[in-house]
Amino acid sequence: MNKNVAVIGAGSMGIAMAVLLSKNGNNVKVWSPMSDEINMLKENREHLTRLPGVKIPDSVEFTTDIYIAAKNCDVVVLAVPSQTTRQNCKALSSIISKDTIVVTCSKGIEDDTCKLLSEIMHEELPHNNIAVLSGPSHAEEIARDVPTTVVAASEKNEVAQYLQDLFMTPNFRVYTNTDVIGVELGGALKNIIALCAGISDGLGYGDNTKAALMTRGITEISRLGVAMGGKADTFSGLTGVGDLIVTCTSMHSRNRRAGILIGQGKSVQQALEEVNMVVEGVATTKPAYELAKRLGVSMPITNEAYDVLYKGKDPRKAVGDLMTRDKKNEMQ
Amino acid sequence: MNKNVAVIGAGSMGIAMAVLLSKNGNNVKVWSPMSDEINMLKENREHLTRLPGVKIPDSVEFTTDIYIAAKNCDVVVLAVPSQTTRQNCKALSSIISKDTIVVTCSKGIEDDTCKLLSEIMHEELPHNNIAVLSGPSHAEEIARDVPTTVVAASEKNEVAQYLQDLFMTPNFRVYTNTDVIGVELGGALKNIIALCAGISDGLGYGDNTKAALMTRGITEISRLGVAMGGKADTFSGLTGVGDLIVTCTSMHSRNRRAGILIGQGKSVQQALEEVNMVVEGVATTKPAYELAKRLGVSMPITNEAYDVLYKGKDPRKAVGDLMTRDKKNEMQ
Repeated sequence: MNKNVAVIGAGSMGIAMAVLLSKNGNNVKVWSPMSDEINMLKENREHLTRLPGVKIPDSVEFTTDIYIAAKNCDVVVLAVPSQTTRQNCKALSSIISKDTIVVTCSKGIEDDTCKLLSEIMHEELPHNNIAVLSGPSHAEEIARDVPTTVVAASEKNEVAQYLQDLFMTPNFRVYTNTDVIGVELGGALKNIIALCAGISDGLGYGDNTKAALMTRGITEISRLGVAMGGKADTFSGLTGVGDLIVTCTSMHSRNRRAGILIGQGKSVQQALEEVNMVVEGVATTKPAYELAKRLGVSMPITNEAYDVLYKGKDPRKAVGDLMTRDKKNEMQ
Repeated sequence: MNKNVAVIGAGSMGIAMAVLLSKNGNNVKVWSPMSDEINMLKENREHLTRLPGVKIPDSVEFTTDIYIAAKNCDVVVLAVPSQTTRQNCKALSSIISKDTIVVTCSKGIEDDTCKLLSEIMHEELPHNNIAVLSGPSHAEEIARDVPTTVVAASEKNEVAQYLQDLFMTPNFRVYTNTDVIGVELGGALKNIIALCAGISDGLGYGDNTKAALMTRGITEISRLGVAMGGKADTFSGLTGVGDLIVTCTSMHSRNRRAGILIGQGKSVQQALEEVNMVVEGVATTKPAYELAKRLGVSMPITNEAYDVLYKGKDPRKAVGDLMTRDKKNEMQ
């Protein structure tokens, strides 16, 4: 492709994207604000803590100067903690041109405003084409060329197709979708259900219990998503149920790991300290709870997660309360 | 409830149902044609090979005489290999009254005829109300009172509600649904995808790959299901994606275990011998392949499974062919 790509963020997803895009023939610059991290990457051509063993092609450049990374680039790939999306877009707004496509790999909802990342990107970069890359895609596996499928979503189909061409390899299959809201919400809200699936595992419950939580979880995610303007079908796809599956069943998932610790009796604070990485599901539960209340959408699992995370409810009592609700028809 | 229930089949699901229904206050008789199995159950009050450690309540009776088991019963629970459904219904037809409800826990499609189990039951028991119990529910966990959710499906809502009342406990949550075809097809076809997920694991692929197979798998299951008269929503529910999740991610699943062995290089025959239990996914792939062809429905994963199982195709080549299909929009 031979495009100029800036990757903002040098965590596991940023490095995985840089490796993929570089091998695909693009000029890639990776930015991180942390000089220790950038120096480590320059010296070792490898992220020793986040992606040990994955060699980064020699052509990938590293910098702590966002101007050097993003100036004159065709595409910006955001791979940062979701709550830093606004500040990073603000920084980019004076550097990139209106022709630059900005695509985020992050997943979350802004805490104070309950806004989606694409909304924030539109607000801070009103002249740029905005897109979302999402799906069942642990960075650890992308970087090791494990067969992976994702969705590139943008309101304009041609933007989604441009990114499909940019990212696609024989082991990284990219589908397009124009339902940005649906794609984003699936990715953000699944982290709440992954936390709950972890809690269920931590409590010692079984595969039946976890599958029930996941299935009823995607049902309530879809309910909120449709109320917010997403399409129901999107939640049955790779960025909905697909991403939910990978996040709830893999030990790569920080959300699931944090949930397991909470289920085993640790406090939320202890669990977050032990995982020692950003656990998006904890940050996302509050705005999701608020949005459901505001829109009058029934989200029993999210409500229980909120009570466990923010009101100290006993997780075992939360599962019990979910199991003993009124007798129901499945489709209601 | 205090109903008379006959459980046909004394494998892990038959025993789990007998334990659940007995604890729920019903009179339960379990039938198996194998006198060794019945004697073992009578002597030990425990199925030593299928459900070791699960004590069967004293009130449960065991018999090799289907007449003694089913005479005057209110409900028959079928928990037999799917391919024996017709012969068992034939045997029941001269024993049970027209008021007996017959519910199956089995999952499959009749090999020669491509017929669903509910169709077979209607044919052989034309005067009885027919129902299906399905969902993410490993027998091993039901029997140990792990929180579990299922769906009772019948064309008549009142029959589904009767079964909801019969089966429901604080740890066994039963939803109702009237989409019998959708509920059945999800349960039957998910075994094909579980085989494929196992093959992916056996080949050493990752969580991303398996989640992709599962998501695109439920998409094609839903496509066939809707063509056969099922409702799309059902495939997003407990008996579709829920059962798919539990079957593809658990080591309890024989289908997944057989797939792992095939992925590791064993022949289909060797894999079946090593698992040494009924692997419904192998039997179901052929009629599913036939149905898809007959109805003109695109089922790329099922087609690859058919080629691997019946034409000796290399599984690694099958995954490669799935990953490198044309660039697509996700919703097409």
